[in-house]
Amino acid sequence: MTKGVKIVTIGGGSSYTPELMEGFIKRYDELPIREIWLVDIEAGREKLEIVGTMAQRMWDASPYDVKIHMTLDRREALKDADFVTTQFRVGLLNARVKDERIPFSYGMLGQETNGAGGMFKAFRTIPIILQIVEDMKELCPNAWLVNFTNPSGMVTEAVVRYGKWDRVMGLCNVPVMATMTEPKALGVEKEDLIYKFAGLNHFHWHKVADDKGNDITHKVIDAMFDKDAGLPKNIHDIPFYRDQLEQMGMIPCGYHRYYYREEEMLTHGLEEYNGIGTRAQQVKETEAELFELYKDPNLDHKPEQLQKRGGAYYSDAACETIAAIYGNKDTQIVVSTKNNGAVPDLPADCVVEVTAYVGAQGARNVAFGELPTAERGWLQVMKAMELLTIEAAVTGDYGTALQAFTINPLIRSGDTAIKIMNELFIAHKKHLPQFAETIARL
Amino acid sequence: MTKGVKIVTIGGGSSYTPELMEGFIKRYDELPIREIWLVDIEAGREKLEIVGTMAQRMWDASPYDVKIHMTLDRREALKDADFVTTQFRVGLLNARVKDERIPFSYGMLGQETNGAGGMFKAFRTIPIILQIVEDMKELCPNAWLVNFTNPSGMVTEAVVRYGKWDRVMGLCNVPVMATMTEPKALGVEKEDLIYKFAGLNHFHWHKVADDKGNDITHKVIDAMFDKDAGLPKNIHDIPFYRDQLEQMGMIPCGYHRYYYREEEMLTHGLEEYNGIGTRAQQVKETEAELFELYKDPNLDHKPEQLQKRGGAYYSDAACETIAAIYGNKDTQIVVSTKNNGAVPDLPADCVVEVTAYVGAQGARNVAFGELPTAERGWLQVMKAMELLTIEAAVTGDYGTALQAFTINPLIRSGDTAIKIMNELFIAHKKHLPQFAETIARL
Amino acid sequence: MTKGVKIVTIGGGSSYTPELMEGFIKRYDELPIREIWLVDIEAGREKLEIVGTMAQRMWDASPYDVKIHMTLDRREALKDADFVTTQFRVGLLNARVKDERIPFSYGMLGQETNGAGGMFKAFRTIPIILQIVEDMKELCPNAWLVNFTNPSGMVTEAVVRYGKWDRVMGLCNVPVMATMTEPKALGVEKEDLIYKFAGLNHFHWHKVADDKGNDITHKVIDAMFDKDAGLPKNIHDIPFYRDQLEQMGMIPCGYHRYYYREEEMLTHGLEEYNGIGTRAQQVKETEAELFELYKDPNLDHKPEQLQKRGGAYYSDAACETIAAIYGNKDTQIVVSTKNNGAVPDLPADCVVEVTAYVGAQGARNVAFGELPTAERGWLQVMKAMELLTIEAAVTGDYGTALQAFTINPLIRSGDTAIKIMNELFIAHKKHLPQFAETIARL
Amino acid sequence: MTKGVKIVTIGGGSSYTPELMEGFIKRYDELPIREIWLVDIEAGREKLEIVGTMAQRMWDASPYDVKIHMTLDRREALKDADFVTTQFRVGLLNARVKDERIPFSYGMLGQETNGAGGMFKAFRTIPIILQIVEDMKELCPNAWLVNFTNPSGMVTEAVVRYGKWDRVMGLCNVPVMATMTEPKALGVEKEDLIYKFAGLNHFHWHKVADDKGNDITHKVIDAMFDKDAGLPKNIHDIPFYRDQLEQMGMIPCGYHRYYYREEEMLTHGLEEYNGIGTRAQQVKETEAELFELYKDPNLDHKPEQLQKRGGAYYSDAACETIAAIYGNKDTQIVVSTKNNGAVPDLPADCVVEVTAYVGAQGARNVAFGELPTAERGWLQVMKAMELLTIEAAVTGDYGTALQAFTINPLIRSGDTAIKIMNELFIAHKKHLPQFAETIARL
Ligand SMILES: [Mn+2]
Ligand SMILES: [Mn+2]
Ligand SMILES: [Mn+2]
Ligand SMILES: [Mn+2]
Repeated sequence: MTKGVKIVTIGGGSSYTPELMEGFIKRYDELPIREIWLVDIEAGREKLEIVGTMAQRMWDASPYDVKIHMTLDRREALKDADFVTTQFRVGLLNARVKDERIPFSYGMLGQETNGAGGMFKAFRTIPIILQIVEDMKELCPNAWLVNFTNPSGMVTEAVVRYGKWDRVMGLCNVPVMATMTEPKALGVEKEDLIYKFAGLNHFHWHKVADDKGNDITHKVIDAMFDKDAGLPKNIHDIPFYRDQLEQMGMIPCGYHRYYYREEEMLTHGLEEYNGIGTRAQQVKETEAELFELYKDPNLDHKPEQLQKRGGAYYSDAACETIAAIYGNKDTQIVVSTKNNGAVPDLPADCVVEVTAYVGAQGARNVAFGELPTAERGWLQVMKAMELLTIEAAVTGDYGTALQAFTINPLIRSGDTAIKIMNELFIAHKKHLPQFAETIARL
Repeated sequence: MTKGVKIVTIGGGSSYTPELMEGFIKRYDELPIREIWLVDIEAGREKLEIVGTMAQRMWDASPYDVKIHMTLDRREALKDADFVTTQFRVGLLNARVKDERIPFSYGMLGQETNGAGGMFKAFRTIPIILQIVEDMKELCPNAWLVNFTNPSGMVTEAVVRYGKWDRVMGLCNVPVMATMTEPKALGVEKEDLIYKFAGLNHFHWHKVADDKGNDITHKVIDAMFDKDAGLPKNIHDIPFYRDQLEQMGMIPCGYHRYYYREEEMLTHGLEEYNGIGTRAQQVKETEAELFELYKDPNLDHKPEQLQKRGGAYYSDAACETIAAIYGNKDTQIVVSTKNNGAVPDLPADCVVEVTAYVGAQGARNVAFGELPTAERGWLQVMKAMELLTIEAAVTGDYGTALQAFTINPLIRSGDTAIKIMNELFIAHKKHLPQFAETIARL
Repeated sequence: MTKGVKIVTIGGGSSYTPELMEGFIKRYDELPIREIWLVDIEAGREKLEIVGTMAQRMWDASPYDVKIHMTLDRREALKDADFVTTQFRVGLLNARVKDERIPFSYGMLGQETNGAGGMFKAFRTIPIILQIVEDMKELCPNAWLVNFTNPSGMVTEAVVRYGKWDRVMGLCNVPVMATMTEPKALGVEKEDLIYKFAGLNHFHWHKVADDKGNDITHKVIDAMFDKDAGLPKNIHDIPFYRDQLEQMGMIPCGYHRYYYREEEMLTHGLEEYNGIGTRAQQVKETEAELFELYKDPNLDHKPEQLQKRGGAYYSDAACETIAAIYGNKDTQIVVSTKNNGAVPDLPADCVVEVTAYVGAQGARNVAFGELPTAERGWLQVMKAMELLTIEAAVTGDYGTALQAFTINPLIRSGDTAIKIMNELFIAHKKHLPQFAETIARL
Repeated sequence: MTKGVKIVTIGGGSSYTPELMEGFIKRYDELPIREIWLVDIEAGREKLEIVGTMAQRMWDASPYDVKIHMTLDRREALKDADFVTTQFRVGLLNARVKDERIPFSYGMLGQETNGAGGMFKAFRTIPIILQIVEDMKELCPNAWLVNFTNPSGMVTEAVVRYGKWDRVMGLCNVPVMATMTEPKALGVEKEDLIYKFAGLNHFHWHKVADDKGNDITHKVIDAMFDKDAGLPKNIHDIPFYRDQLEQMGMIPCGYHRYYYREEEMLTHGLEEYNGIGTRAQQVKETEAELFELYKDPNLDHKPEQLQKRGGAYYSDAACETIAAIYGNKDTQIVVSTKNNGAVPDLPADCVVEVTAYVGAQGARNVAFGELPTAERGWLQVMKAMELLTIEAAVTGDYGTALQAFTINPLIRSGDTAIKIMNELFIAHKKHLPQFAETIARL
C-alpha cells in the first residue's frame, strides 16, 4: 500500500458505483486511493463503460488524481489489490425478477434476500465468490474482501466456511439506516445514542441507550409508532405489533417485517406483482433511468435519483469499512463477520451480523449476550437455513436445497413449494452448473 | 407400596380409561395394583360413572381383586398415591373443537397439539397440572406423575420447569406406533430392530438398525414408500418427500407431516372442516358411540371400536412405563423427560422426547448425539415456541403468547394470526383466568 | 460371522490372556468363537508361545473346539476378524518402569495412566493403534476394536478423532470393581442397585440408587468409611475426605486418589520407589511368576495368582462387551466411547467414559446430565490434557507436549517437570519416532 | 450528576489513595468531581486521617476545588454517590501476611490473589462487598461500583451472581502494565498496537497486532526473551518457557508465572519467607514508609516511592474507567465484567476479564473467540475454582471450600492442604463469621 491504495470492485458496472465513488472521494484524506479497478463480465460491458466513464468524471471533478480502470479480466484486476469489493449480480436484475415473480406466481413470497428468491441468489452467487477467493489467495493474499452482494450474510459465511478466508466483511445498509433515522425520530444526534446490534444479515435486532447508558429502546419503539422509522426504500412500510416489540425489548430490522407481518407483506407483494411489478422490475426501470443519466458527459457527481434505488448509505457502510481497516480507525460498524462468541446462541465459528469496532484487524465484535427465547429460536432456525442453503450451493444436492426450503419460515412446505423450487432451478439453469444433474432430472 | 400399588387417574372419565385398565390387567403379575382412583370434575360426573363402572366390570372379569374408586375430590384421591396418570382435558372435546375450527375458519391450521390449537390447550392445561403438582408435593411426595394430556411435551416441561417436580414422564403413542408398524413393513420382529428417537413430543425423528447394528433407516424409508407406515388414526396419510428423508437419514414422526407437507395438511384439514367435521368433531362422535357401548352392563372388556379413537397402544406406553418404574425393569420407552444432554443441541435442563431405559429412577436417556443441520434448527425454534407458550400459560402475558404464535412454523404471522389468537382467547375465556385482563381488553 | 466368531488379540502374549480365555469359555454359549488369534511382536515371541500354549490347553479342557493361533504377523491375523482386542504394551513393562521411576527420581508422581508416565505411554501407543486402525480399515472393516491398552480413554479418543474409526470401545476394570464391591459393602446384590457413571477413563464419578430409585450414594460413602471399598490392587488404599465426597454427592473412582490425596499418593509411591519397587516392578515379579506357572503343561485354567496382577474382572469387562455387541444384549457396561451429549459439560464429539447399554450398535450412552461445579472444572481440564497429549502423540510437537504436562494436575510446572519430560523422551527414544527431532535436540 | 460527580472510596485509608487522587486531578476536565468521600473502618481511622489530609493537600495544590470527606460511616458516604470504588482490605495487611505465611510454613505457595491466600481473601471480602451492594441498592441505585479489591475477578463475580448488581467493573493493573511495557520493548508507541485480552483476573492471555492488523504476538514473545517485560513489582521475574508461548501463540499475564513456573515461584517465595519476608511483609514496610511520607504537611503530590508498592498504573485503570463511563468515551480497557459470550469457552453469564470498550453503558466486551485447548481447559478449571470459592464465601460450607482448594492448580491435595486450610480458617476466625460453625469444629 506504499504508493496509495488499490481498490477492485467486482460488478463494477453496477448503478451503485457512483455512490461508492462519492464515498471514496469524501474520504480521500484518510484513504489515499491510487487506482480503482471496475471489473465486470461480457454481458455487463456496456454498463461498465457507462458507469466507469462516469466514475472517472467524478474523480476528475475532485481534487484527487485517481485512475479508473475498466476490465473484463478479473485476474488482471485482482493483482496486488488492497481491497476487493463485491457487488456483482449473477444473472443481473433479470435473474432477480425471476426470483421474485416465480414464487409470486404461486401465491408465495419470493423475498430476494432470505426467502426463496434469496436462496437461489445464494445458489448462483456462492460458486462465483468462492472462485474470487481462490483468485485472491493467489493474486492478493493480503487484501480484504468487502462484500455487498446479497444475500450478504450467506455469501460471507460461504467465504469463511468453504473459502477458508477470514479477511472478509459482509455489509448492509439496513443497520446504517436505523442509526440515521432513529436519532432524528427522537430529536437527538446519532452521537448521543449507543447502539448494539445482533443477529444475521436482514435478520437482526438492536438495542439503544442514551449517552448516560440508560436503555431507551422503548422510547424508540414509541417513536416508531408515531413517525416514519426510516425504512430502506425496498421494504414496504407496515408497522410491527407494538405488544411484540415491547415483549422483546429490542427493535427488529426492517426486513423482519417479512417475518412478523408475513401475511401483509405477501398481500402487498402480490399487489405489486399484479400491478406495477415486483421490486426488481421497479429497480430495473430506475436503473435504466440512472444509466441514461450516467451517459450525460456533464454529470460528474452522484445524481439524486440514486436514492430511489434503495442503496442509501451504501457508501457510508462500504467506504467507512475500508477506511476503518486501512486507517485502523476502530469505527463502530455493523458487519457480517465470524461470531467469536458475540452471539452466544450461535456457534462461535459461524458468521453473524453484529456491532463491531472495525480496524486494521477487521471486526472486533461487541459481545451481545444471550438473546431472549423467541429471538434465539428464530435465529437458530434461520442460521440452519443459511447453512443448508450454502451447503446446497456448494454441493448441488437437491435434498439439501429442499431441507433449506422447508425450514425457511417464509416458505409453506408442500407441493407448491416444490413447484416453485423446481421452476426456479429450471429458470436459472444457466447459472447453476452445480445443480446440472438435478435440473436435467426435473 | 407394601400392600399393592395405588393408581390415580386424573381425567378418569375419559373414553381411554378401559384401554388403561386392559393394560393394567395384562401386567398385574408385575404391577400388583391395590386400588385405582378415577378422578374427574363435576362436568364429567356422568362419564366418570359410566366408565368407572365399566372399569370395575373389567377388573371383576379378571382374576384380580382391584377396587375402582370414582371421585370428584382430587385431593382425597391423591393421598398416598404411588402413580398419578393425567389424561384430563380442560374444556373437554368442545374446547378442542374450538382449537381446530377457529383457525380453520380463517383458512389456517389449528393443529391441536403444537399448532395454534395446541398452544391454547397448553394455556388451559398448564395451570391445572401445576395445581396437581402442588397437591402431589403435599399428599403423595414420592409418587410418579405419568402424563398423557396433550401437548404432552409442553405439559411435562411445565411440570419440571415451573412445578420443580422431576418425578414426571410425558407419554405419547406415536413412537410406539412406529416401532409396531415398521418391523411389519420390513417383515421382521420388533425385537430384531434397534431404535433411537430424539426430538420433542410430536416433533421427533428416529433411526433404525438391525440386530447386527447396521443402520437400516433407508430400508424403512424404502418400505414407507411402498406400504402403509402405520400412522396414528388422527393423522392424515400423505407421504413425505423421499429426497428429503434421504437427506436427513432419519424418519420423522407422523405429526411431522404438518411441517413437511403443511400445504396438503391444510387442504385436507379444510376439507374436513367444511365436510365431515374436524378431527375433534369426529372424535366426539366416536366417543358418544363408545360411551353408549360402555353403558352395556355386559361389556367387561375393551371394545374394538376404541381403536378408531386414535389412542392405540396407549396402554402399552402408559402401563409399561408404570410397570417399568415399579419393577425397575429398564425397559426401552420413548418418553418426554429432562434432557440431561441426550439431545446436545438443546439445553441440558429442558424437556425432550427420547429413547430411554425406564426403571426405578425414571428415565435413563440414550444420548442421541448432535442432529443434522435442518433438524437442529427446527428443533431449536420449536423448543423456543414451547418455552414461550409455557411462559405465557404461567404469566398470562399477551406479548409472550404473540411471540410464541409468531415463531410457530405452522402459523403465518400477520393480522389473520392475531384475529385467530384473539378469537381463541375469547372462546376459551372461562378456562384462561390468567389471561383475564388481556381478554377483557380484546 | 456365519461359522463362528473370529477374535484377534493384539498383545496376545500378555499375562492377562488366560483371564480373557476364561471369560470367553464362560460365555461360549452366547459367543460361539471359531478361532482366536494371539498377535505379538518379535520381542514377545517367547511369552506368546507360553501363554498361547496355555490358552490352547484351557480351551482343550473346555467342551469347546476353539483353535488358538499364535503369530507375529498382525495383518495375517486381522484378515476378516470380527473383534480385535488390544492389550499390547509398547516397550513392555520395562517402559512402564521408566514411566514411573523417572518422575519419582525427581520426587514427582509418574502415574502410569494419566500422569507423566501415562502421557508417555500415550505417546508410544497412539501411533501403533492408529496403524492397527489403518490395517483394520483394509482387512476387517466391519470388526469392532475393543481396547484395553492404557491410557484406555486417550487411546480410544485417538482412534475416533485421528483414526476416524467409530467401531471402538475402551475398557477398564475400575468401574467393574466398584459395582462388585459396593453391593457387598452394603449387604445387597449387584442387581439391587442402579449405577450411573460419568467422566473420563480413570477419572470418573458415579452415583448409586436402590431398586426403588432412591439415591443411596451417601450410604455407599458411609460404607466406604467403614469397610474396604474394593480398590484395584494397583491403587494404594488411602481414604478420600468424607466432607468432600458429601459435598459432591458422588463417588470418585479409585484413581481419583491421585487427585484428591496427591500428597499421600506421592509419599506412598516414593516409599515403594525407594523400597519394594514401583508398581511396574512389582508387576514384573508377578508376571515372571505367572509365566512360570503358565509353563506348567498341566495347568489348564486361570491360576489364582493372576488376581494379584491388578486386572481382576478384566474378563468381565472385555468378554461381556464382545458378547453384548455380538448378541445385541443391551448390557449395562461402563465404556470409553463417543460422548454424544451424555456428559454435557464436554463436547459431544469427544470420548468419555460413561454407563452405556451395549448392543449390536455399540454403546448407547446414558445421559448423565451436568456435573457439579468442581467435577465439571476438573473434567474439562483433564479432557484438555488428554487432547493435547494425543495431539502431541500424533504431531510430535514438543510445545504441545509441554502444554499437556503443564496443565496436568499431577505435575508441578517448572524446571523439574521439564527435566522429567526430557529424560522420559530420551529414555523412550526408540518408541517415539515422531519426536525424533525433539529428542535429537535435547 | 448535575453539579459534579460524587466519588466514594471504600478503604479510603489505603496507601493507594494518592495515586487515585493524581488520576482524578489529571482527568478533572473530563470528570468534574464535586466531592470525594474516603470511607474506612475504626481500625483504619489513623491511616484514613493521614491519607485523607494528604489527598486534600493534593487537590488544594491543583487548580480544582474538590472537597475530601473522611468518614467511618459508609452509609452516610454512599448517599447519592455516582461512583463507588472499593479498595478495602478486610483484616488489613496483617491478614495478607497470614494468607501468605501459613501456606509457606507448610512449604506451599499462598498466592494472595488466586492461590490459597487469595481464596481466604475472597472468604473475608465477599460478605462485605455484598453488604456494600445492598447499601448501594438503597442509597445510590444508579451508581457504578468500580472494584479494585482482590481477588478482583471473584469479587466482581460475587457482586453480579449473588449481589444481582450489574453496574460493576473489576479492575487490575496487570493488563495496563503489559500495554505500557510491550510497546517500549518493541520500540513502538502504544497507539501502534492492537490488543486483545481474554481470560480471568490474574489468569488471562493476550494477543498483539500491529497497526496494519498483522499478528505480532511472536515478536513480543521474542522481545520478552531479550528484555524486561514490565512485570508488576509484586511478581518475581522468571521467564516463561519459550516453546510453550510459541505453542499457544498468546502472551500469558504476569501472574501466570505461578502456573507455568510453579516450582520456581515456590522456591523464590520460600526464600523470601525465610529471608526478607513475604510480599505482604515487604509491602507493610513500604506502606509504613509511605505513611511517614504522607504525614509530611508539605507533600502535596504522589511520592515516587509509591511505585514500589506494586500498584503502578492503578490510577490509569480506575480513573480512566470512571471517566470513560461518565463521558461515554468508549475507551479500550481490560475489565472484569459479565462475559456475554466474549469468552465462548465459559458460560455467557459468568464474569471474565477481557478487552472492552467502556462507555456510559459499561463494558462492551470484544468477542475473543475460542481459546486453544490448553488455555481453554485451564480457564475452565480456574473458573470452577472461583465459583466454588465464592459459593463457600457465601454459604460458609466447608466441603465446598475443600473442593475449591482441591481443584486449585497451585494447591497439592492431601493432609498438608487440609492443615493449611484449617489453620487459615482459625487464623482469620474474626473475619469469617459465615464459617463460625466450621471453625468451632476445627
Ligand atoms: Mn442488505
Ligand atoms: Mn401424542
Ligand atoms: Mn483401567
Ligand atoms: Mn490485579
